[in-house]
Amino acid sequence: MTDRMVIVAEERAARPHQFDITDKPYKDVCPFCEGNESLTPSETSAFRRDDSAPNSPGWRVRVVPNKYPAVVPGDSKGNGLHEVIIDTPRHVLSISELTPSEVADMLAMYRLRLQALRADSRWAYVLIFKNVGAAAGASLPHSHSQLVAMPFLPPSLRQLLHRAEEHTKAHQCCCWCNHLISEVQTGTRIIEETEHFVILCPFVSRFAGEIEIYPKIHQSCFDQIDAPVIGELAELLRRTVVRLEKAVFWMKNPLAYNIVLNTGPLRFEGDTSQSFHWHFSILPSLARAAGFEWGTGLHINPISPEQAAKRLREAL
Amino acid sequence: MTDRMVIVAEERAARPHQFDITDKPYKDVCPFCEGNESLTPSETSAFRRDDSAPNSPGWRVRVVPNKYPAVVPGDSKGNGLHEVIIDTPRHVLSISELTPSEVADMLAMYRLRLQALRADSRWAYVLIFKNVGAAAGASLPHSHSQLVAMPFLPPSLRQLLHRAEEHTKAHQCCCWCNHLISEVQTGTRIIEETEHFVILCPFVSRFAGEIEIYPKIHQSCFDQIDAPVIGELAELLRRTVVRLEKAVFWMKNPLAYNIVLNTGPLRFEGDTSQSFHWHFSILPSLARAAGFEWGTGLHINPISPEQAAKRLREAL
Repeated sequence: MTDRMVIVAEERAARPHQFDITDKPYKDVCPFCEGNESLTPSETSAFRRDDSAPNSPGWRVRVVPNKYPAVVPGDSKGNGLHEVIIDTPRHVLSISELTPSEVADMLAMYRLRLQALRADSRWAYVLIFKNVGAAAGASLPHSHSQLVAMPFLPPSLRQLLHRAEEHTKAHQCCCWCNHLISEVQTGTRIIEETEHFVILCPFVSRFAGEIEIYPKIHQSCFDQIDAPVIGELAELLRRTVVRLEKAVFWMKNPLAYNIVLNTGPLRFEGDTSQSFHWHFSILPSLARAAGFEWGTGLHINPISPEQAAKRLREAL
Repeated sequence: MTDRMVIVAEERAARPHQFDITDKPYKDVCPFCEGNESLTPSETSAFRRDDSAPNSPGWRVRVVPNKYPAVVPGDSKGNGLHEVIIDTPRHVLSISELTPSEVADMLAMYRLRLQALRADSRWAYVLIFKNVGAAAGASLPHSHSQLVAMPFLPPSLRQLLHRAEEHTKAHQCCCWCNHLISEVQTGTRIIEETEHFVILCPFVSRFAGEIEIYPKIHQSCFDQIDAPVIGELAELLRRTVVRLEKAVFWMKNPLAYNIVLNTGPLRFEGDTSQSFHWHFSILPSLARAAGFEWGTGLHINPISPEQAAKRLREAL
């Protein structure tokens, strides 16, 4: 009746929390710091010095299976793959504390993992996301990303992909390509435009300071990004998070945000190559979803996207 | 493309927060306590002693316009009515601290407001909900409910109502009536059954310890409830929250939960009288929605509804 889908993951209940809710400094040994490689499962992939061995120091980005997975490989429809991408060997919290070259390594690893998982016929969809800060749902402070590969498409994504395909058939153009042209023309919701990207507050912003980053060129999947463009994206992603931190949205809460990479599916009954347009969503965790949001599916946003874009433009 | 709907409410940004995120005791004078009536807008409705004047002490439940409304009356589609129902003159936090007769007064006021708003042709839907505790989105600790009347139906509710109507046409029975019979037969997700109600953990539980309360008799709207049954519902609602507090779901977070009253629409293009079945949802705020949930619309639940129901049955 509701299209609601839930993953029951009882292993997750055992997950340790190094945060308490107020974001105090970590208490225990950090399993994501260089030198503590033995505290994680064995690495799946890494960017590391040629003379270094797997699961030892010498890495820049490291991918390991999630120790408390939401999904695990198997035969049934509910299963999948849950990985952690450790963005940096240094114990820092936010993308704003990474160097541009660290952010570029992180993004290059996103691309590499997407390319690798594309070759595995078990997976229909890969979601890469970041939870930064306890208020955004992170259980460890050390900067990391998460990857979940699924053998099915989330129902809301499937619906969106079908609608996007219909739009492209009717208009001979990707609806996001159209939308970007009109947003740049309007201008009020644009935060920044670079050679290859547009950064804006979406017209239907669910959260105060919600941001989207789009490539100007039509690409359905993130792993189609050209290697030379990754550096530009890394700098602007880092700069955009710095903007958020300087804008006054946070009030007295500690810094917290989610980043979601919306990329085309690996497998789908239709053709998304011309109709889906990959993009990043940055979702500040200023307010929690509460009774109204869970009861209606609507969101209440205390700041219009035009006001938010203005503040974010002026933050730097 | 997404059916996403957002209410932009810039007045909300001015809302004062008596909570900080760790649920410390309130710092300022509580505007919801008896004797402080002048700190709220003028009351819309109240249960109070015959010899008492409006906006003065002597009340049991008091309804006032929300001072920082998400929606305000007006002509355009985005507008509505946002009220606060102050559950009790006493400064207590949770339903578990209310007396059964205070809970019954609160529920009787829900019924009275629904009946009153039904007569106002501006409104298509009324949502009544509670946010209890800062982690559940409450900005004030004093026990209160909120009511939002809207001139439109939320898109996800409209879709659900259409599907429910199709089900009833095809099967000559409300799908929730059917579902309750099969859930009681299965038994594993049932927490408690009383003369007129079934309390269970839903098969598709989004949150650890999610609970639903259904009337056994078919009723589409909460305001159809018989007055004598309100006392039974009040006792079991209070007892169910006590169960939640005694169960171990909370871990080290402070107590926090949302309650949502799902009731039939006031106006709708179809007929919901035989196809929608009102119910309460109780949503513990154990974990926040994070990157995965916002990116996919799926939920990850660390406790199966069968395990949750077992723990809640055994909590008392």
